[in-house]
Amino acid sequence: MELNEAREQLKELQEKLSAYDHAMSLINYDGDTAAPRGTAENRAHAQGILSEMAYILSTGQETMDLLEYLDAKKDVLSERERRQVELLLKDIRYMQKIPEDEYIAFEKAIVESQAAWHDAKEASDFASFAPHLEKMFDYTIRFARYAAPEKDPYDYWLGEYEPGINQEICDAFFDQLRARLVPLIRACGEKPPISDACLHGDFPEAQQEALAHYLMKLMGLDMDHVGLSTTEHPFTTSLGSHLDERITTHYQRDDFSASMYSVIHEGGHALYDTGSDDDLAYTALDGGVSMGIHESQSRFYENILGRSPAFIRFLFPKLQEFFPDALKNVTWQEVCRAVNRVQPSLIRTEADEVTYTLHVMIRYELEKRVMHGELKICDLPGEWNRLYQEYLGVTVPDDRRGVLQDSHWSFAAIGYFPSYALGSAYGAQLLAKMKESVDVDAALSRGDFAPINEWNRRHIWRYGALYTPKQLLSQVLGEPFDPAYYLNYLERKCLEIYGF
Amino acid sequence: MELNEAREQLKELQEKLSAYDHAMSLINYDGDTAAPRGTAENRAHAQGILSEMAYILSTGQETMDLLEYLDAKKDVLSERERRQVELLLKDIRYMQKIPEDEYIAFEKAIVESQAAWHDAKEASDFASFAPHLEKMFDYTIRFARYAAPEKDPYDYWLGEYEPGINQEICDAFFDQLRARLVPLIRACGEKPPISDACLHGDFPEAQQEALAHYLMKLMGLDMDHVGLSTTEHPFTTSLGSHLDERITTHYQRDDFSASMYSVIHEGGHALYDTGSDDDLAYTALDGGVSMGIHESQSRFYENILGRSPAFIRFLFPKLQEFFPDALKNVTWQEVCRAVNRVQPSLIRTEADEVTYTLHVMIRYELEKRVMHGELKICDLPGEWNRLYQEYLGVTVPDDRRGVLQDSHWSFAAIGYFPSYALGSAYGAQLLAKMKESVDVDAALSRGDFAPINEWNRRHIWRYGALYTPKQLLSQVLGEPFDPAYYLNYLERKCLEIYGF
Repeated sequence: MELNEAREQLKELQEKLSAYDHAMSLINYDGDTAAPRGTAENRAHAQGILSEMAYILSTGQETMDLLEYLDAKKDVLSERERRQVELLLKDIRYMQKIPEDEYIAFEKAIVESQAAWHDAKEASDFASFAPHLEKMFDYTIRFARYAAPEKDPYDYWLGEYEPGINQEICDAFFDQLRARLVPLIRACGEKPPISDACLHGDFPEAQQEALAHYLMKLMGLDMDHVGLSTTEHPFTTSLGSHLDERITTHYQRDDFSASMYSVIHEGGHALYDTGSDDDLAYTALDGGVSMGIHESQSRFYENILGRSPAFIRFLFPKLQEFFPDALKNVTWQEVCRAVNRVQPSLIRTEADEVTYTLHVMIRYELEKRVMHGELKICDLPGEWNRLYQEYLGVTVPDDRRGVLQDSHWSFAAIGYFPSYALGSAYGAQLLAKMKESVDVDAALSRGDFAPINEWNRRHIWRYGALYTPKQLLSQVLGEPFDPAYYLNYLERKCLEIYGF
Repeated sequence: MELNEAREQLKELQEKLSAYDHAMSLINYDGDTAAPRGTAENRAHAQGILSEMAYILSTGQETMDLLEYLDAKKDVLSERERRQVELLLKDIRYMQKIPEDEYIAFEKAIVESQAAWHDAKEASDFASFAPHLEKMFDYTIRFARYAAPEKDPYDYWLGEYEPGINQEICDAFFDQLRARLVPLIRACGEKPPISDACLHGDFPEAQQEALAHYLMKLMGLDMDHVGLSTTEHPFTTSLGSHLDERITTHYQRDDFSASMYSVIHEGGHALYDTGSDDDLAYTALDGGVSMGIHESQSRFYENILGRSPAFIRFLFPKLQEFFPDALKNVTWQEVCRAVNRVQPSLIRTEADEVTYTLHVMIRYELEKRVMHGELKICDLPGEWNRLYQEYLGVTVPDDRRGVLQDSHWSFAAIGYFPSYALGSAYGAQLLAKMKESVDVDAALSRGDFAPINEWNRRHIWRYGALYTPKQLLSQVLGEPFDPAYYLNYLERKCLEIYGF
């Protein structure tokens, strides 16, 4: 094999994989947005076959030979090619360890599981979803054992979603957070309660949708390459490359802030994805490097920027234009306090910034126990409800607002949740660094995301997956990851809102 | 090769092709519905790779060997397998005759041609589209010569879109229509003009959408497997199999009948597709057999049923519920006359049932002459305008509403148009046959599509592409195709509406 020919083949391989990715991501997206209800099986049929073909392409002997050849010559490859080979080889070595028929069955089971979750959530009927969830955990454990028999299966998956992370690190991280967050939440609870009445009223969906488009443009999203749809659970997906990005939201007629913060959150993901250098498109480096870094961006835009007093003060007159009746007798200070009030609640995606981490901790604890066989699927709802009572002091009225609220487990994203908390903590440390060169509050107070986006693009987005999360953070921060930044940030925010 | 193994491979081959079809149809559908504006290039990238992979799968040596093997054993295959092999071999033999580089160049030229047509239509600028159209005709002629050197190229393509049809048949068919339609249209023109004012007014889109869903259910479409979206031009597409069907419509705020009849037309296509026997899914026999039979169903529902006095009388009170203000002072008779009025016009897709065929005839005549070198591309607009004046008595004000109105030629669908007229004529003959055992008017007068659908399912839908159009028609009709039924039907309709 000629080196240049091999390089060309490396490019073509990644282009083909991106075409399969485009097809499969779109089939999923369609399933969540436009597809008629009874078509899940038909989608599963196509996904099964496409994933089989993608599997054969990415793990076949020819591909293996190509990647091994290039790996042996890595000294003469470009930095990008080297990383592409590394990532593709990592995948191929994983895939080689998973029996093909099991992998295909797994992909099919995911589609069915997601459909079952949808129906189960609507009917608040955990029992109908339980056999699917059981399968998802089974596959997760089995595949981890195939991939890394020497590792604890849950450690394996934590490290897959956030390279470098394991239970030891998570336990220490969550302990550190718990030690300062629990008293912080208690202290807020002892202050006079903040009303969020100003967020409630009648907010017509068409106006909420107009606000969503306004926010997307304001945030600097390229509307020619980023689409918005409505789904039960908001998410972000790329179709084949960062050149076609879709975000989704969910409108609540009586609360404009629910969709507003979903849009800003998903918009943060989309900024990160679409911020990849254009010539990373159709390669393994396109998009983001990890879930943790992804959440560091989405939660940065949603909370650190989106809930800042400076931004809300700027945005408020615009909100009044969108909702003249409902917000007629409201002030920006009321909105600011309402979207920042600390209030234990049922739904993770609607939780405030401070209690949010406790929602994540509950999921972390439950997944860990199921993964270790210490908790049975049928006991999940009960344990869920018990922990919500214990950690947050709230009573879960039904599984729809309890164990069925998140989609993640329905597609076997087990070990994913901690990245939300890690990402939030990365974000606070990134903010401190950003402030050394950008006047963030001044920018927000004029609704100007350009200098903020520019900093993120220069230090994070443009690299795609070129660097590992650890390399990337160490490059930009110049010091180790330290959750104290996050705790300091949250304490300062509470001081601002609650005035103690 | 073992026979049973080969049969299994035949099944798998078709399943893989259906997965590619699912992906590519969905990418197109997404492009027309949800995709952001700037993402066409990203879609073209994925489509290019997927279509190349599908091409390699369907024409590769392994597939060829399999099909030749099965073809040699066709006596022991089931009727369905025999037809699957026949259809797949037909495609492969065609593709084998087309030089691969020319085929790839053609696919690329189509994409450019469609984009050029879009722009040209918007600017009403035929000259900018002419070189692309020239190429489309050139490829069409060249590929027909490769595929069937013994045939006239236009005959070849007519037979591709509607097997069994050629110019001799079309000439006779159109002559027969012309002889009775021209005087019929003239007679209608001499009657007092019918007003369509009752169709115009303010019809909010949300109400039109609710009407669309009502009509889909009324027609008997399975809403769990048929979705509705909005696009510039209405169409129907299957995703991978008849188990996931999508129709689209286009709402005109000032005329509810435009979307209403689009929905019934596309709904007719969807009934035919989704009426395939379920075990035809993921085979070459799934969906319909030809464009002509497809149009016989869509135009049957749209015109023969949807514009019948019995149906409009039934539907009218419901229309008043959807549009209480706009239809307050309107009667069902007025609506019935308006949607059936005979009125020569410029745009084929908006033409009434009687003049429609003349629009098709003009296209037939023009394509035939271009295909035979008797008409130059640059003379097309002039000839188009001349024929519209001659046949329909209307003056074409610009090419946007003239020669550029239809997209078909821009993607080399030359020889396609006659299927619209043939389908309409098939439909009228099918109606006569249906009436021998179903009281169609009585069913329509109570809005009951069940006996009509049952008849169509039993005689047409369930077979998918198992029989050729000719076989299918001869089976159900028990006599040869005869356009006189269509002419009788139209004359009777005019008598009813115009009262002569």
